[in-house]
Amino acid sequence: MITKKILVMLMDVAIVGATGYTGAELLRLLARHDDVDVCYITSRREAGKHVFKVHPHLKGVDKYKELYFVGDVDKVDADIVFTATPHGVSMSVVPKFLERGVRVIDLSGDYRFEDLSLYEKYYNIKHVGLPDVKIAYGLPELNRENIKKAQLVANPGCFPTGAILAIAPLVKEGLIEERVIFDSKTGVSGAGVNPTETTHFPNVNENITPYKITKHRHAPEIEKELNKIGRVKVSFTPHLAPITRGILTTAHAFLTEDISDNDIIDIYNEFYGREFFVRIFSDDIPRLTYVRGTNFCDIGGFEVDCHGRVVVVSCIDNLVKGASGQAIQNMNIMCGFREEEGLLDIGLNP
Amino acid sequence: MITKKILVMLMDVAIVGATGYTGAELLRLLARHDDVDVCYITSRREAGKHVFKVHPHLKGVDKYKELYFVGDVDKVDADIVFTATPHGVSMSVVPKFLERGVRVIDLSGDYRFEDLSLYEKYYNIKHVGLPDVKIAYGLPELNRENIKKAQLVANPGCFPTGAILAIAPLVKEGLIEERVIFDSKTGVSGAGVNPTETTHFPNVNENITPYKITKHRHAPEIEKELNKIGRVKVSFTPHLAPITRGILTTAHAFLTEDISDNDIIDIYNEFYGREFFVRIFSDDIPRLTYVRGTNFCDIGGFEVDCHGRVVVVSCIDNLVKGASGQAIQNMNIMCGFREEEGLLDIGLNP
Amino acid sequence: MITKKILVMLMDVAIVGATGYTGAELLRLLARHDDVDVCYITSRREAGKHVFKVHPHLKGVDKYKELYFVGDVDKVDADIVFTATPHGVSMSVVPKFLERGVRVIDLSGDYRFEDLSLYEKYYNIKHVGLPDVKIAYGLPELNRENIKKAQLVANPGCFPTGAILAIAPLVKEGLIEERVIFDSKTGVSGAGVNPTETTHFPNVNENITPYKITKHRHAPEIEKELNKIGRVKVSFTPHLAPITRGILTTAHAFLTEDISDNDIIDIYNEFYGREFFVRIFSDDIPRLTYVRGTNFCDIGGFEVDCHGRVVVVSCIDNLVKGASGQAIQNMNIMCGFREEEGLLDIGLNP
Amino acid sequence: MITKKILVMLMDVAIVGATGYTGAELLRLLARHDDVDVCYITSRREAGKHVFKVHPHLKGVDKYKELYFVGDVDKVDADIVFTATPHGVSMSVVPKFLERGVRVIDLSGDYRFEDLSLYEKYYNIKHVGLPDVKIAYGLPELNRENIKKAQLVANPGCFPTGAILAIAPLVKEGLIEERVIFDSKTGVSGAGVNPTETTHFPNVNENITPYKITKHRHAPEIEKELNKIGRVKVSFTPHLAPITRGILTTAHAFLTEDISDNDIIDIYNEFYGREFFVRIFSDDIPRLTYVRGTNFCDIGGFEVDCHGRVVVVSCIDNLVKGASGQAIQNMNIMCGFREEEGLLDIGLNP
Repeated sequence: MITKKILVMLMDVAIVGATGYTGAELLRLLARHDDVDVCYITSRREAGKHVFKVHPHLKGVDKYKELYFVGDVDKVDADIVFTATPHGVSMSVVPKFLERGVRVIDLSGDYRFEDLSLYEKYYNIKHVGLPDVKIAYGLPELNRENIKKAQLVANPGCFPTGAILAIAPLVKEGLIEERVIFDSKTGVSGAGVNPTETTHFPNVNENITPYKITKHRHAPEIEKELNKIGRVKVSFTPHLAPITRGILTTAHAFLTEDISDNDIIDIYNEFYGREFFVRIFSDDIPRLTYVRGTNFCDIGGFEVDCHGRVVVVSCIDNLVKGASGQAIQNMNIMCGFREEEGLLDIGLNP
Repeated sequence: MITKKILVMLMDVAIVGATGYTGAELLRLLARHDDVDVCYITSRREAGKHVFKVHPHLKGVDKYKELYFVGDVDKVDADIVFTATPHGVSMSVVPKFLERGVRVIDLSGDYRFEDLSLYEKYYNIKHVGLPDVKIAYGLPELNRENIKKAQLVANPGCFPTGAILAIAPLVKEGLIEERVIFDSKTGVSGAGVNPTETTHFPNVNENITPYKITKHRHAPEIEKELNKIGRVKVSFTPHLAPITRGILTTAHAFLTEDISDNDIIDIYNEFYGREFFVRIFSDDIPRLTYVRGTNFCDIGGFEVDCHGRVVVVSCIDNLVKGASGQAIQNMNIMCGFREEEGLLDIGLNP
Repeated sequence: MITKKILVMLMDVAIVGATGYTGAELLRLLARHDDVDVCYITSRREAGKHVFKVHPHLKGVDKYKELYFVGDVDKVDADIVFTATPHGVSMSVVPKFLERGVRVIDLSGDYRFEDLSLYEKYYNIKHVGLPDVKIAYGLPELNRENIKKAQLVANPGCFPTGAILAIAPLVKEGLIEERVIFDSKTGVSGAGVNPTETTHFPNVNENITPYKITKHRHAPEIEKELNKIGRVKVSFTPHLAPITRGILTTAHAFLTEDISDNDIIDIYNEFYGREFFVRIFSDDIPRLTYVRGTNFCDIGGFEVDCHGRVVVVSCIDNLVKGASGQAIQNMNIMCGFREEEGLLDIGLNP
Repeated sequence: MITKKILVMLMDVAIVGATGYTGAELLRLLARHDDVDVCYITSRREAGKHVFKVHPHLKGVDKYKELYFVGDVDKVDADIVFTATPHGVSMSVVPKFLERGVRVIDLSGDYRFEDLSLYEKYYNIKHVGLPDVKIAYGLPELNRENIKKAQLVANPGCFPTGAILAIAPLVKEGLIEERVIFDSKTGVSGAGVNPTETTHFPNVNENITPYKITKHRHAPEIEKELNKIGRVKVSFTPHLAPITRGILTTAHAFLTEDISDNDIIDIYNEFYGREFFVRIFSDDIPRLTYVRGTNFCDIGGFEVDCHGRVVVVSCIDNLVKGASGQAIQNMNIMCGFREEEGLLDIGLNP
């Protein structure tokens, strides 16, 4: 066997807000991306510091030897910008880049809703308005063609990624009743890098606790996206589990036709057959550690009980397929790179 | 303030199968029970060993200084017997005690089903037949009067305890559609004391994994009990979580009437108002560590979403209210002791 | 067998600073103490709130039905006061109670040092001076007679409790070289109830991290106490482990005489033979879950390697024997109650 | 910036015993190694099965699409063989490959001892004798020149890797007394893939437990290697921690000269200055998650206490630098590949 690689030009990438977990994951993954160079990282708080000081686990990455945090976003010059900024902040930063013709992948919720009233209701933030560029919801498996043409990609929420991919084939085929229940279990890294009572170790450890039981802002995001391919009423309840990474979503739905487990597996294989990042588990149950550190969404379960309930389970790493990995996947699609470039990590199991 | 206690006669108790977690928990709790003495513990494997050798955490319990494991069940002489034996074994041991007029609380699944064909289908064991004595399903909050009169109590499964208590008031009042989904998360101690691939630390840690997704034997147990008080079709999916103790059950149901969160809380307060071991959480969410080591079932959630789904959450310690604590509660009821005797431990939080 | 209890008068107890973990543990343990009543709990932040609102796991404790937090310490009237206040705060509160003749058990570091310069160096706080009453260092196994007579007991630090008890017999007998190394591993609850970067779940989980590697303030506390019974130079390094409760201390020392493992076990059995709360593990290794929730200090290990190093291991629950349990043990001694009253909980294992 | 890669021939690699954790890690890392192809994997138990069936987390790795387990080791034909077989088994397999001129990296303990009587004492296995080829102890940072010339490399134990690297510079410079204490904390994956009482989740969780307190077989391995560069008497005690991956070693030694923390840091920077896989933490404390999934050994601490004790801390991933990663590093050295090829993963933090 032989392998070879040809000469390439590297694209310049910037990360706005690179101190949190999603910023750190962008850096981890882009370190091994052959088509891009990271030339700017920003942070108001850490301005002037070297990247290895803030993210010691990156020590030794040759590509980042000269990389320091910049405080002023206006100094950023790049071909592609990732905005890993909080909800409400992105909308004040992103337009500046768009005006200069820069392509942006935004990891906040600010551009995920076409209907801004829905955004304003659930995020409790007044929206400044959508920019006049092509915007795409960045779930490649359902929306790849739009992503290709977009100047701005709204990277999906972590729960929506796992929930939508878990049930999309059944929704598309019209095989289930409208009401779908997503019971999700997430790792604590989803709560971000800042300590709170919620993330205090003695509160998390030996517990698994539901929160925002019916009022989580990801519920309307899941619902609106699924309604683009079928008719669904989404009920969603997240739980905080004593793990660091990963979201396991258990989707409960009711079949409208009498089909078997194997029929369902066939439908999923057909639907996701060409997708590199979706792995169908037809005979064993997926595990979070199988996707840990990776951009995979593993889907399994596929059981039907005696009351016609079908259960489908999906696993993602909330920081990768649920955030930074999917953002890079979107970049790859926007830029015409190989879609899996920089995303070939294998699950850190065990 | 003053307190006083009077002279009492102690009842003789035996534990058949006292090497596992439920046996150990019976010993932990009975150590502080003022009305009973533990005079026999059995184990084929550990016969002849002192109880402190097998359960070192009990060291220092004065009551057990002379307690050794007995190998031969026929040597056991007691007023009350707890059988903490595996499914299929109990039915060969329990009848011997019943014949001698001894009262028995059985912690296995062998006597939970009136319809033995259901038992045989889900446990895949041929049943020898039910004994000709008064048998009660040992969930005191729903079945106290029958327990009082029973000679044999079938202690409920751990999942059924949490699931039934979570939804019973709504079922009883006929306020929900037939289909109810229980999405449960359990600690690993529920799998027992013997190491398996399922309980191997690297397989459990950093994972949360569904199992027996639609085929768990506790599903029919939940369904048959709830159908005694209303009409329900039960869908049940358990998940193994990286914690040692506790079951959190998230019950998802659909309301048939337009009632509010507060109406629901009122119904639960009314239903469980006099129950010492059920605590209603009306404004904060229950946590597993609040019930850890205790016989409480904490119930909370009580939210209704925009599609009429109601969510109720229950927390129990699977080894206490889900097994040994409830067994002692049953004994207290059968013997006319104070129902909370020996069960006054407070949740080990954090 | 029979049991009986006689009529008793209950003593009035107050807890100053009852919102943290040690305050909560005092409440958990005193709920089942037959000789005292808790009549005051204080907190500036939670003043006016019911105890069940701040500590939901206590719900159902009859004794506390009428217990509300008080904001003003001057309103506290009690026979015995526990001060579970931060270092530096205790010294401003404790003297007020002492002046009124109230006995105080202080859980902070403020009264642990006879030599205030040592305190000021390690705590970086100016000390107001020691009150003119009999003060005792509250480690009953080494200092019971002084505790009996004291009006103020300085409850030991969590690490010192486990470390001193682990090595005291060998120090007393003069069987080891001066230099002793304590390598301790602690649960996160030792860091208190307030969230910080140190206690942020993703920082703790899957890590075990040394901190204050040579500069922890418990090092001089251990050293000064051990030097009361022998000659020791203490080296101490604590590690934060991904567990909630417990401290395991591994003591490494070098023997000055050629004695065997069994000789050492004999020395420990002799030294601690009458101590209810010290359990010697001569043939199995102690575990944190064996002491979880209890006031026991389990000691084991007792191995000697080919270079004459002896290893002794101790396990405590940092919130019980390392704080609130030992405080109650001290109260029992001061008041002439049975020493184990309120402290009969059995380790929550697993 | 530009990057390019030239045409290369791939070397054929086999893994004997590829069902355990170290086998799986070899596969994970070699999947991204540009100079080798994995053409054989063996397992008696899993013979005939596809690699994705046994290791589902590898699904999607193009390189392994046609890779099935082989039962018969004699069928293996390769340029390089990794033997990830148990102690005692390697010595029956390795010689066959050596005779054919194949280079072997053995991950067991069978070839780590020049003095076979030491091996036989600590492993309690009769050794068949060392083969007549050049054998090297595979710790590249101390032994690179010998590894280059070896036909057989004995990959070091996991504890010895972290312990030796932590203290080697001080031993080499003769700055510490002979007696060194290594207090190590290891993740559970070090115990292997097979469930035992030791790895049973409820036994591990919420515990941290010393084992083989003075008798672990890695003690003599550490001692003999360090004595090649200085004079040391090694005392070693391992602890099992409730984490999956990683070994943190706390080395306690006593200085013979009065040198400062900064002097020590200089010595370490000098000693490891050119080593890609050793990272010196001079101002923050290393963490296991920083090295998780990587071949790095992070070293920090470097504090001296008032009694002249110096503390140095090292962190490795026991399955990577402590096993499979180091094995690949050794292969790279033996074969003249770039030493970090296939080993560029960044720590999965958090």
